[in-house]
Amino acid sequence: MKIRQVMLAKKLVGNPTETDFRIEDSELGQPGPGEFIIECEWLSLDPFVMIMLDETMAGPAADRVDQPMIGSVVGKVIKSNSDKFDIGDLVETRGFWASHFLAHEDAPKTRKVPTLSDSSHALGAAGLNGYTAHVGIIHTGKVKAGETVVISAAAGATGSIAGQIAKIRGARVVGIAGGVDKCDAVKKLGFDDCVDYRADNFAEQLKAAVPDGIDVYFENVGGDVTFTVLPLLNYRARMLMCGFISYYGHEGEEEGPDMLPAFYRHIMLKGMAILGFDSGSLITKANKIELLKWIESGEIRALQTVYEGLEQAPAGFSAMFRKNHHIGKTLVKISG
Amino acid sequence: MKIRQVMLAKKLVGNPTETDFRIEDSELGQPGPGEFIIECEWLSLDPFVMIMLDETMAGPAADRVDQPMIGSVVGKVIKSNSDKFDIGDLVETRGFWASHFLAHEDAPKTRKVPTLSDSSHALGAAGLNGYTAHVGIIHTGKVKAGETVVISAAAGATGSIAGQIAKIRGARVVGIAGGVDKCDAVKKLGFDDCVDYRADNFAEQLKAAVPDGIDVYFENVGGDVTFTVLPLLNYRARMLMCGFISYYGHEGEEEGPDMLPAFYRHIMLKGMAILGFDSGSLITKANKIELLKWIESGEIRALQTVYEGLEQAPAGFSAMFRKNHHIGKTLVKISG
Repeated sequence: MKIRQVMLAKKLVGNPTETDFRIEDSELGQPGPGEFIIECEWLSLDPFVMIMLDETMAGPAADRVDQPMIGSVVGKVIKSNSDKFDIGDLVETRGFWASHFLAHEDAPKTRKVPTLSDSSHALGAAGLNGYTAHVGIIHTGKVKAGETVVISAAAGATGSIAGQIAKIRGARVVGIAGGVDKCDAVKKLGFDDCVDYRADNFAEQLKAAVPDGIDVYFENVGGDVTFTVLPLLNYRARMLMCGFISYYGHEGEEEGPDMLPAFYRHIMLKGMAILGFDSGSLITKANKIELLKWIESGEIRALQTVYEGLEQAPAGFSAMFRKNHHIGKTLVKISG
Repeated sequence: MKIRQVMLAKKLVGNPTETDFRIEDSELGQPGPGEFIIECEWLSLDPFVMIMLDETMAGPAADRVDQPMIGSVVGKVIKSNSDKFDIGDLVETRGFWASHFLAHEDAPKTRKVPTLSDSSHALGAAGLNGYTAHVGIIHTGKVKAGETVVISAAAGATGSIAGQIAKIRGARVVGIAGGVDKCDAVKKLGFDDCVDYRADNFAEQLKAAVPDGIDVYFENVGGDVTFTVLPLLNYRARMLMCGFISYYGHEGEEEGPDMLPAFYRHIMLKGMAILGFDSGSLITKANKIELLKWIESGEIRALQTVYEGLEQAPAGFSAMFRKNHHIGKTLVKISG
């Protein structure tokens, strides 16, 4: 059958742009043993894919030039040579920026989508972003009632959920986001406050928003925002390492000054814990059920930015690396 | 009474040198209420004092130019206006590079020295360095039998004790030190191996020394050594932040490239935990007794480099920031 794909046209250096990709039509073969064909409905656009394409980190497997671009997808099984997935099943898997593709039943991160009033949430609040937020705030961060939690990229797919979970835990939650619109969206989710990092007096505003200092910092960005947060951290604060969009795609030598010594000083002087975590291995079945309940009951609200049509994926992905383009989870609606 | 002190002659920038200090003779007053006079026997030389003198981190309290230089001291009470400390008591306190000084009974970190066959250990293995090693390896690092632990500055006052405690816990312990003499000294302490970071094939040697990867990295240095260790860390490794001698004294902007993005990538990809810790608040009475037992029984051996005479303190301290000058705890013998 005829399919359409978005290919990686060149090695990504710095922030991606639309010309790094190209659209290609081709022919899809028949599913082999254990395989099935997915008709893609929703494609997730995630900045962290940059790490998977960074060969200094991910090794030669990252060499995907002239290959279809990778991403998580929700779609319907339309042809199956698998005992596990039947025609008509709604499935999430790590796939491609494509109208259709062949998936294998044993591929990692492949699952039937849970029953949701809106299946797109399987890629966000009820999927990777929600899991990351849950594991970060509860398992790794152990956020307690009365603590002050600051979330950067608070209007983002993960940050917006992390803040709502921290509120459920009884914390004071302050977001950091770029621009008034994003801050308004974040405050509407129930955050106690949200500070615009582009404001001239950002540092002052942030300080005023955390009168008792910061106990937990949920890190999504890196760079200047991080160094505005660090002096406000309380003794023995935890820093939860979710992401660092300001550093993605900057393979190799970075322009100075070297900020690592200053980062070390903060860790030492404050007896801090900087905690990485892998939501995939740490999320439990009970966590997933809890999260689903929060989403379906509306206790947690999932913000989304949706691009219409596969052809818009390069524009959508590139826009994520420019400031203030997206609120919440960024998705491409491919069909359905 | 007449006393002699070492004064900080100028603001320290970069690595300290002898000309940053000057010797001064002066007159010491009588002890006021709660005060006593210490006749110093041993002075501890510690690179981390640089952090306390770094006004960007420690604030205006760091302005100690033309003041006596600060350091931990063990000495005898020779005059007392305190109910807690009597003439003849052997006391440890945060004091000065001086022949004598006035101390207050309520000053933090002031204690009678435990009974030790060698009282100088109160400043090292049975004091700050031992406490830091114990809290790092056991409380914060939770090192388990069978794990691989790598210790940088393994011939240093803290690293040498940390490695021996990790051995007692049943770990495989590999040191990193500068030069053959230091590596030999470390191996004699019972480390499974020690790698010379100045060797041309340091990275290869380190890799060969940790066939199962690294579970715990006890960090004392920063810089190139750290970035040789990071790729060898196992998934979910812990990095214990004890110190970073290569970054001390480098106040303000550091020359590039910026290594923080690369550091972030390692944390994220490996789900690592970077753990600061404050031994002062985390060490328990039971920990102290255990440590003392290990030292007095010889199960833990404390390496020392001793300078004779207060006048040698500036030379000794400056030498700590040049490579390969000291093995173990660096002390100045002042009297006794």
